[in-house]
Amino acid sequence: MCGGQGLVTVGEIGERRLIDLMMRQLTPMPDMPLPFWDDASAVSLGGGRTAVLKTDMLVWETDVPEGMTPFQAARKAVVMNFSDLGSKGVRPLAFLVSLGLPRSFSAEAVEEMARGLDAGAREYGAYVVGGDTNEAGDVIISGMAYGVADEDKLMRREGAQPGDVLATTGGFGRTAAAFKILLEGYAAPPGLRDALVESVYMPRARVEEGAALAGSGAVSASMDSSDGLAVSLHELSRSSGVGFRVDRLPSSPEAEEFAELHGVDLSDLVLYGGEEYELVFTVRPGEVEAARSALRRVGCSLVEVGEVTADRRIVYVEDGEEKPIRMAGWEHFKG
Amino acid sequence: MCGGQGLVTVGEIGERRLIDLMMRQLTPMPDMPLPFWDDASAVSLGGGRTAVLKTDMLVWETDVPEGMTPFQAARKAVVMNFSDLGSKGVRPLAFLVSLGLPRSFSAEAVEEMARGLDAGAREYGAYVVGGDTNEAGDVIISGMAYGVADEDKLMRREGAQPGDVLATTGGFGRTAAAFKILLEGYAAPPGLRDALVESVYMPRARVEEGAALAGSGAVSASMDSSDGLAVSLHELSRSSGVGFRVDRLPSSPEAEEFAELHGVDLSDLVLYGGEEYELVFTVRPGEVEAARSALRRVGCSLVEVGEVTADRRIVYVEDGEEKPIRMAGWEHFKG
Repeated sequence: MCGGQGLVTVGEIGERRLIDLMMRQLTPMPDMPLPFWDDASAVSLGGGRTAVLKTDMLVWETDVPEGMTPFQAARKAVVMNFSDLGSKGVRPLAFLVSLGLPRSFSAEAVEEMARGLDAGAREYGAYVVGGDTNEAGDVIISGMAYGVADEDKLMRREGAQPGDVLATTGGFGRTAAAFKILLEGYAAPPGLRDALVESVYMPRARVEEGAALAGSGAVSASMDSSDGLAVSLHELSRSSGVGFRVDRLPSSPEAEEFAELHGVDLSDLVLYGGEEYELVFTVRPGEVEAARSALRRVGCSLVEVGEVTADRRIVYVEDGEEKPIRMAGWEHFKG
Repeated sequence: MCGGQGLVTVGEIGERRLIDLMMRQLTPMPDMPLPFWDDASAVSLGGGRTAVLKTDMLVWETDVPEGMTPFQAARKAVVMNFSDLGSKGVRPLAFLVSLGLPRSFSAEAVEEMARGLDAGAREYGAYVVGGDTNEAGDVIISGMAYGVADEDKLMRREGAQPGDVLATTGGFGRTAAAFKILLEGYAAPPGLRDALVESVYMPRARVEEGAALAGSGAVSASMDSSDGLAVSLHELSRSSGVGFRVDRLPSSPEAEEFAELHGVDLSDLVLYGGEEYELVFTVRPGEVEAARSALRRVGCSLVEVGEVTADRRIVYVEDGEEKPIRMAGWEHFKG
């Protein structure tokens, strides 16, 4: 403001620096069971129990691609909040919603959204317990997830140690390929196309998987991958003070098929996508089998992708050659 | 959709019918400590304790009047959520925020908002424990409040009985007068103007007052008055299945002064305003002194305004004449 300088906009500084700026203005709550900069927030209930909370909004104009229904958009608003709880090992109990709606919006579409909220919550054993509507220019679905957990079972972003095994709950790259179809006009045979766009329209949160991993006691750090695998690795690196060496790209078969079909780079689809809700986590060496069987019991395979390193570089090793993994993927205001 | 009928819009049906429509799509959580249609939501923690949750959003374009700063808007987003907890007798512990921001919005204003969130939370003994930012066309401050309470102390909208005393925590009409100044160009002498617009820019939630009333055990029903006194009476009537006779209009001195100055109807200012955060509650006959001294201990006066009646009419008695109090005040999509 001084010296006639122009104001810096949100778009110029991006989401991460903006959140840093905001956090500097906030008084930290003493003894928070999860650090402020984690996937969800926790407030101790005493006696070793903690409430776990998350709020995140879905903005129609920027977050809902062509062809997604109001039911699917509302369900996704549940999934994205529940995914953050799941990544901490917490099962959601309740969901609340605050809807922003233009006056001209269809009431029938709002009913459909309510059905989507209910379906999303029930899918994970939770209930929609409250809501509110407001007038807004955009359609906004602002959600809030609540769960309760044992404090000593919470999986944090910090805690990964050099030598730990880096793993995920599944393959990546479907949503990045789907966005190429939905936003850039790429084609795919019907079966493949359906599988890819389904990953965008009907994402699934790894809630039972997160609870199983937390129960195993084998995990040293964990987060979800809603901003893409590369971003998750960079955030885990920042929180745990470690680096990662990815030896095996956790690609989904559909992403591989799409990459081959169009000659696009598979590692780009896998690393730099977003809106995928796999868990990215680290396991203490010697406890991989414990984590693997915990996941197997809930019908999920543990995908080993690499190792935690002491130096803070984040690299993908392909054919013996190290390639840096960039801090790139989904960031609001910078798309 | 069938027979070529046009779609019904949100604006045509209004907020209350829209919420009714949505609720019909939702699976009720068993044994909720508060009914779905109450100021806040509650999820049992077992052992007689309950988590209390509320989410509500502030939309810059429709909810922030001329002259309100980003600090004040953010603080108000805290106050409106905490007011709902306070009306149930619950002290907030934590606040989370999900911000929607246009790319061109000033980062400095966002910092100012963070200061406002922190100030609002700390003012009521709570902390901001989490947040998220998203790209949106409007500036949206979607807040989420969390507290813990004894289940048997919660004050509900239902429970008022004929013969109970109707009371409030203070006088009404300041904000309605302030909106006449801010939106309709009415004038007022500086001292009066400042007091009135202050009620809009820096509202206060009755959190300690609500906790004191809950502690007294004298209250049979309670809600806040964010949509105006008349709406609160109609909602309490609907939830408790009773009516109200208002014998004494709970007008604030500033509203009286403004009404006299401009010859506007004082009862309109008092009954049909909004964005006021007094508690409207009913007290069992014989327990009024207990409620009054509980409030006095936190520096607040109990304002007796009338009586709960068996018939479901809601009337104001002035000079021996009964006038119906309409279901009017603030409703989204219908302003």
